Amino acid sequence: MVQKKIAGVLGATGSVGQRFILLLANHPHFDLKVLGASQRSAGKKYVDAVNWKQTDLLPESAQDLVVRECKASDFKECDIVFSGLDSDYAGAIEKEFAEAGLAVVSNAKNYRRDPGVPLVVPIVNPEHLQVVAHKLETAKAEGKPKPGFIICISNCSTAGLVAPLKPLVEKFGPIDTLTTTTLQAISGAGFSPGVPGIDVLDNIIPFISGEEDKMEWETKKILGHLAADKSHVELLSPEEMKVSAQCNRVAVSDGHTECIALRFKNRPAPSVDAVKACLRDYVCDASKMGCQSAPKQTIHVLEQEDRPQPRLDRNRDAGYGVSVGRIREDPVLDFKMVVLSHNTIIGAAGSGVLIAEILRAQNMI
Amino acid sequence: MVQKKIAGVLGATGSVGQRFILLLANHPHFDLKVLGASQRSAGKKYVDAVNWKQTDLLPESAQDLVVRECKASDFKECDIVFSGLDSDYAGAIEKEFAEAGLAVVSNAKNYRRDPGVPLVVPIVNPEHLQVVAHKLETAKAEGKPKPGFIICISNCSTAGLVAPLKPLVEKFGPIDTLTTTTLQAISGAGFSPGVPGIDVLDNIIPFISGEEDKMEWETKKILGHLAADKSHVELLSPEEMKVSAQCNRVAVSDGHTECIALRFKNRPAPSVDAVKACLRDYVCDASKMGCQSAPKQTIHVLEQEDRPQPRLDRNRDAGYGVSVGRIREDPVLDFKMVVLSHNTIIGAAGSGVLIAEILRAQNMI
Amino acid sequence: MVQKKIAGVLGATGSVGQRFILLLANHPHFDLKVLGASQRSAGKKYVDAVNWKQTDLLPESAQDLVVRECKASDFKECDIVFSGLDSDYAGAIEKEFAEAGLAVVSNAKNYRRDPGVPLVVPIVNPEHLQVVAHKLETAKAEGKPKPGFIICISNCSTAGLVAPLKPLVEKFGPIDTLTTTTLQAISGAGFSPGVPGIDVLDNIIPFISGEEDKMEWETKKILGHLAADKSHVELLSPEEMKVSAQCNRVAVSDGHTECIALRFKNRPAPSVDAVKACLRDYVCDASKMGCQSAPKQTIHVLEQEDRPQPRLDRNRDAGYGVSVGRIREDPVLDFKMVVLSHNTIIGAAGSGVLIAEILRAQNMI
Amino acid sequence: MVQKKIAGVLGATGSVGQRFILLLANHPHFDLKVLGASQRSAGKKYVDAVNWKQTDLLPESAQDLVVRECKASDFKECDIVFSGLDSDYAGAIEKEFAEAGLAVVSNAKNYRRDPGVPLVVPIVNPEHLQVVAHKLETAKAEGKPKPGFIICISNCSTAGLVAPLKPLVEKFGPIDTLTTTTLQAISGAGFSPGVPGIDVLDNIIPFISGEEDKMEWETKKILGHLAADKSHVELLSPEEMKVSAQCNRVAVSDGHTECIALRFKNRPAPSVDAVKACLRDYVCDASKMGCQSAPKQTIHVLEQEDRPQPRLDRNRDAGYGVSVGRIREDPVLDFKMVVLSHNTIIGAAGSGVLIAEILRAQNMI
Repeated sequence: MVQKKIAGVLGATGSVGQRFILLLANHPHFDLKVLGASQRSAGKKYVDAVNWKQTDLLPESAQDLVVRECKASDFKECDIVFSGLDSDYAGAIEKEFAEAGLAVVSNAKNYRRDPGVPLVVPIVNPEHLQVVAHKLETAKAEGKPKPGFIICISNCSTAGLVAPLKPLVEKFGPIDTLTTTTLQAISGAGFSPGVPGIDVLDNIIPFISGEEDKMEWETKKILGHLAADKSHVELLSPEEMKVSAQCNRVAVSDGHTECIALRFKNRPAPSVDAVKACLRDYVCDASKMGCQSAPKQTIHVLEQEDRPQPRLDRNRDAGYGVSVGRIREDPVLDFKMVVLSHNTIIGAAGSGVLIAEILRAQNMI
Repeated sequence: MVQKKIAGVLGATGSVGQRFILLLANHPHFDLKVLGASQRSAGKKYVDAVNWKQTDLLPESAQDLVVRECKASDFKECDIVFSGLDSDYAGAIEKEFAEAGLAVVSNAKNYRRDPGVPLVVPIVNPEHLQVVAHKLETAKAEGKPKPGFIICISNCSTAGLVAPLKPLVEKFGPIDTLTTTTLQAISGAGFSPGVPGIDVLDNIIPFISGEEDKMEWETKKILGHLAADKSHVELLSPEEMKVSAQCNRVAVSDGHTECIALRFKNRPAPSVDAVKACLRDYVCDASKMGCQSAPKQTIHVLEQEDRPQPRLDRNRDAGYGVSVGRIREDPVLDFKMVVLSHNTIIGAAGSGVLIAEILRAQNMI
Repeated sequence: MVQKKIAGVLGATGSVGQRFILLLANHPHFDLKVLGASQRSAGKKYVDAVNWKQTDLLPESAQDLVVRECKASDFKECDIVFSGLDSDYAGAIEKEFAEAGLAVVSNAKNYRRDPGVPLVVPIVNPEHLQVVAHKLETAKAEGKPKPGFIICISNCSTAGLVAPLKPLVEKFGPIDTLTTTTLQAISGAGFSPGVPGIDVLDNIIPFISGEEDKMEWETKKILGHLAADKSHVELLSPEEMKVSAQCNRVAVSDGHTECIALRFKNRPAPSVDAVKACLRDYVCDASKMGCQSAPKQTIHVLEQEDRPQPRLDRNRDAGYGVSVGRIREDPVLDFKMVVLSHNTIIGAAGSGVLIAEILRAQNMI
Repeated sequence: MVQKKIAGVLGATGSVGQRFILLLANHPHFDLKVLGASQRSAGKKYVDAVNWKQTDLLPESAQDLVVRECKASDFKECDIVFSGLDSDYAGAIEKEFAEAGLAVVSNAKNYRRDPGVPLVVPIVNPEHLQVVAHKLETAKAEGKPKPGFIICISNCSTAGLVAPLKPLVEKFGPIDTLTTTTLQAISGAGFSPGVPGIDVLDNIIPFISGEEDKMEWETKKILGHLAADKSHVELLSPEEMKVSAQCNRVAVSDGHTECIALRFKNRPAPSVDAVKACLRDYVCDASKMGCQSAPKQTIHVLEQEDRPQPRLDRNRDAGYGVSVGRIREDPVLDFKMVVLSHNTIIGAAGSGVLIAEILRAQNMI
């Protein structure tokens, strides 16, 4: 029997932390042993510290874990640490952890722009993890201790956006122009307090702070190229790709819907059928590696005219699959389509766990 | 004291018909005297025939009107007839009415594509009513009886879209490219049965039958040019303007939100401040004519970063004003912005009433 | 022309404060001159201090008022002060105001249980204001300066509950037993942060802190008797009336729905028709006095089987009228029925303004 | 290996029918072989006939089944037939099926009042199935062919209500008086068209046709006694138990919340703690029999003050467990509490499947 990797979760009482705990409970390859949260929670049993707000019950295996403070010395037994920390705290804490030699997969935004930190959507660009592999190999070659590192999970709305882009770019060449208008679920905003009820009842909030900027540049990093020396990832330049995002918060619990349009650089553009076939045939590397959480079908191409819908389609492949519907020609760019992804699974904690599965499959942890 | 014009409403028991009745009750220039509906309702008092679903109470003046069948002979006393008929019936009935010499303002889609029928958003293109004026003058000059005519109200989502475009085109020249992604209210779908509850609860429907096509060509007619001989309106050609729409139904009762982006033909594009000033300064012709329902402020330019919102902004100027927010530069086209309009007022029955006010102000009825 | 009374609002930036400001703008008898809020807001123009969240626009007359601190010395010009303060602050501040001789109408719960403070739903028990009248007369007779006083507005869900009870008790004698299960709107919870979106989306919260207790005893004070010496109000005893409340928060913006049942002490119980007639015929004292905001119809008895509904019926009589439907016999008590009231109008700020109108009509301010 | 029973579903394209199909897919003891629907669907593959609206995908095993008409001759291979038929059709069809010797478990209301037809909530009164067992034994003893029969599933809101009552009555004796006010999910109304979106958005519908009457008498049958000769079930008389229900439709997808209160006949009433212990300790017979779908914990007693909530608690034990919270003394009756049950599982199709599991465990099919 295979030895399980010891896992820890930072920010364990928060929205993302709770999701990590759900996804790690009964995981065949990870053993969740350490939970960290604020001083207010430290020292309490998790069941007493948390205001559990998930639709699945709090796993029994986590209930009695005593919450620790977010110090590297309290997590040193961990092979992998998942961070659901708020960005106000993530910067300092994750840095301390990485410097202490720990492997950190973070949902926070703090290090996403760092060229040496891979920004990974595991069904899209696991090859960017070679930056970490390279770092580990170099240290080994130099006889140094195994270094810590940080890997960033992308913003939730970016994850859904780039999923169908990857196979399209691989098959039909670069995308020249990309627009997306999002209809984003409220779970993405956490719940302390999250989006006020009065703001989403019979309403739309046509603004999410910082979101459009994140989508516009994260896309260029995730679709960017690994540097020749594997030391970092190079963003696509503004000349290579123009991206425009408009973001809205809507009355949906889980599942981000995005109305996207795109134009390829190469002429003539492929046919609608070729685009559909390309998406349907895509098998992400995580699936090829046999990772536990990898989707059976990475991209679900839906043919019904009114799909995907968040209530009906967000849970395909346990939230690791992305649904694409209404693929049609666009009078302005080449194609328009609707993309739906589960914002707390492939858009947050779920991606974190799948990244860790890839790290394990590739012996990086 | 001015003589009021006698008004009738076709499809009086439906969603649009109910709105016409609300807007015409206590109107200073119209006297609602005739209601028409299906045979099932004909002969009943309106209060007994209707399943009233408005948040305002059924006006007392309409309660005891006896519903008639939708025959021109039953409406001959009317100076103006408002049609809220379903498109299954509107074609034949409105034709009969117009041929019988009646003035019809219709919310149905049947005659919108007819070049001789003006498609009018009254805060945008009342000049297209000159097609009707021309027809009336010609008949008068030829000594013929006053002819009937049909004027079409635009689709609800088109109305909001074109409102800010008109002043921009007047000031900065043609718009070359336009994209819109809509988040549309459910009241636009009527209520027999309208959108099922289960479809909008915790959900998005990323499809509205026929809507995208309507938006794409109606925009080109509303922004199109009056023919030199005033006999019809000429659509903008695909070369003059490219339009792409993506339409979604969301859990909002009233108020369509649209995330739009546009590029002007002329270079350099104006500044963001110039765009804002242009919209803010726009006074629609209906306001200049002093029409009763015309908005005091045609376009409300909102500066808060998270506005407009349907719950907070849809009722500006009693639903006849359109709100525009988040005006900013776009990495792909020139500008992006969020447009909010009240779909049952400026997007449907309200526009019908304002068109009739213009017809009266210009002595066409 | 009548001299307007000078009005102030405490807690002006909060949810209730905003409602007071809306209701006092353009009021024929009150002139809103003073706004008080926390130190953070004091010194700023109101328009800059407030995060305005009402569906009506911020009245121009209030925009430029400079916010003051909540000190009596800053409000001494006021004939009447409306308090929308949070209960954490209301206790000390309202006390200081009353001791300084100011007339305070408060939405806070702090003094509701004080026997010398009338707890008033103005369409129900304005006669309890005689406690104040008595106090004023006594001081006058004794040659003392005009004393200040506090009048409490009831809890929002209590207001709707007692509205139909008052005429029933007047006509048919005491109610022996009363049960209510509420479905309460989220606006009752304010908006900083109020009810989280995730809690009301596809959900019910079957608990509102302190609410059931408030409803159970407030009902006994509002329906209680003025002491013979007019010095205070006597609660109904548990023997006189048993009350049980179960409170739920639901996904409704405005309007509390309550499913109530009741049994009269006297046998035989009246007929359903007699109950309906009694409610329909009720004219509240505030209406008889000709108060500006008093409802034309105090209780609307609805006959349609599926009414009242919050979306359709909450705004009757501008939110000052209460709707009652489905009046029918109950297998357990005598009758069951559904009561709908507007929680921010008759259930909060609106009642405050109507109380002030009564005070003015009765020369208490 | 055990032989699976052959199952059929009537009304297979409807809301309840779809749920039956989901629950029977991959069931260890049933093999779904026959689907029946209207003539319009008959002859088509199920995947082509159905408008699938479940959040789980249409099971592959059902996709290619060719839909048949609802005739007994088309179902004769079935050991058990589940009926999700609309009551307009269920009466005649189910009768024909039973007369043809088929075992029918029906969600329709048509035969619920028939004394010879058990009305069964499987976690509450499986002992009423002895009416069927008795009928089968009698026929066998008389050498007659195995007779068909009908078993009715209760109304969805009744199922949740009676779940906690059963153990309480067993332990503390009869309940004298029972009141319930329901907040019911929209999935209970089906979806053709079901509840209109505009009726549930920012709204409550305080009426569900026929529902209150059903709850009031069904409770008396489910808690009623098996006749001594096992030929039928005797309802509790109005003297034995008074029941009052008030029903509301709310904006919840799945999960009926009920605010109930009750008084026991015996004095003194038990303590709150005794009530909680009784509910917690209850193990339903279906669990004792080891039925596949029987809940591990029949009644979940929740101690948090704001639970149960539909979004968080409806899926306990896959929707077969019922949650009870806020158990407290009541000023009018003995106790009040909040009950939450999954209306499409324990309140409809799920109960049907669990009834069939009991029938199989007891060799009645």
